[in-house]
Amino acid sequence: MKRRLMLVSNSTLYGGGYLEHCQQQIQDFFGKEVKRILFVPYALHDRDAYTKTARNKFKTLGYEVESVDETSDPVEAVRKAEGIFIGGGNTFRLLKALYDSKLVTEIKKRVLQDGIPYMGSSAGTNVSTISINTTNDMPIVYPPTFAAIGLVPFNINPHYLDPNVNSKHMGETREQRIIQYHEEPDTPCVLGLREGCMLLVEDNKATLLGCTKARLFQRGQQTTEYEPGSDLSFLLTDAQ
Amino acid sequence: MKRRLMLVSNSTLYGGGYLEHCQQQIQDFFGKEVKRILFVPYALHDRDAYTKTARNKFKTLGYEVESVDETSDPVEAVRKAEGIFIGGGNTFRLLKALYDSKLVTEIKKRVLQDGIPYMGSSAGTNVSTISINTTNDMPIVYPPTFAAIGLVPFNINPHYLDPNVNSKHMGETREQRIIQYHEEPDTPCVLGLREGCMLLVEDNKATLLGCTKARLFQRGQQTTEYEPGSDLSFLLTDAQ
Repeated sequence: MKRRLMLVSNSTLYGGGYLEHCQQQIQDFFGKEVKRILFVPYALHDRDAYTKTARNKFKTLGYEVESVDETSDPVEAVRKAEGIFIGGGNTFRLLKALYDSKLVTEIKKRVLQDGIPYMGSSAGTNVSTISINTTNDMPIVYPPTFAAIGLVPFNINPHYLDPNVNSKHMGETREQRIIQYHEEPDTPCVLGLREGCMLLVEDNKATLLGCTKARLFQRGQQTTEYEPGSDLSFLLTDAQ
Repeated sequence: MKRRLMLVSNSTLYGGGYLEHCQQQIQDFFGKEVKRILFVPYALHDRDAYTKTARNKFKTLGYEVESVDETSDPVEAVRKAEGIFIGGGNTFRLLKALYDSKLVTEIKKRVLQDGIPYMGSSAGTNVSTISINTTNDMPIVYPPTFAAIGLVPFNINPHYLDPNVNSKHMGETREQRIIQYHEEPDTPCVLGLREGCMLLVEDNKATLLGCTKARLFQRGQQTTEYEPGSDLSFLLTDAQ
């Protein structure tokens, strides 16, 4: 299977600029062959402003950005894309817009069959997985399904957050929420990507990159911590 | 319109026991006429354990608890109920189960037409409003719609949380998420109920009770803070 994915937990790390913490990995990932990246700004309300932010950043890294929202035919834009970047924001809004624009199937085809590189951050990482069942976002719109593009056979929880032991807030912790997900039948692994880390997938190889650890939740099993540099290729086989 | 609602932000307040912080309000609300309360435990996976917790607590307050899950015909149980309590947990799981059991219409009828008292906490408060669009929960299952029972013409965000100024986490704050909701067209008011407060609705009168303030978000307007004791009846008119 051709497949090149860069799935980033968060677009901005505390104290840094937009995509600053992963800029080296972005350049390594898209390399010198890709000149022009198709950007999908659907997760934020102000798509023009969002495109400008992404365009400015990618320009400093040596890439042109074309927004799918600026084209008359989004499906055709995906068909011609050399590489795709889906930015973060609200995951429900993003997934609904991807279905409304009929991009889900086309992106999947381009990435898995044609092998063009796909980068996602936050919500853009969520929609690359099996489903958005493990997003942190508020369900502000109703998508036609929670099934997502399915570029990998597991789920991700971006912005994964450890419990704050000093908190007096009684809402569920992130871990408790993921455990609730795994109370449901036939639910896949969930990789909790802390802010600062990202998953690089190349064909059937998956590697954790960045500066923070990831936490893996498997239904009915103990959770496991992985350091940056870990080989997580086992997640790519369907029956984990 | 007959309507008696007690919509509690959270079932447990830091340092206290289950429903301890609102037990006086519960007794004032159900009064001495109601002897037996129908409990809906659908928001948690272990419904038996959840029923036991609710039953034990309500017993100390002078009420018997029957769980809708222990009856052979949930719709019939709602038809005969003297009062209803829907507990917290995962809002998506709860709403889906309410639709699967065909309880949404029946509960609405019993509360708005027959005037039986309805108490909700957390997810049980979410499902009493127009929709679950402003829940904090993880979308672990896909309900047939986000539209909810609709006992009030606005939305609630339970466990409302102020931003932590010391946090280095870059996920959206609760306020930012609700603002994203209001970027969508035709979205109703959202009442952010901090842990510790609750809304009492009697016919067309709504009063904030408890020990914390509520924060009201109205599309295109400044947010407003309300102290316990505030009259929020204006929220009950459809065109706020």
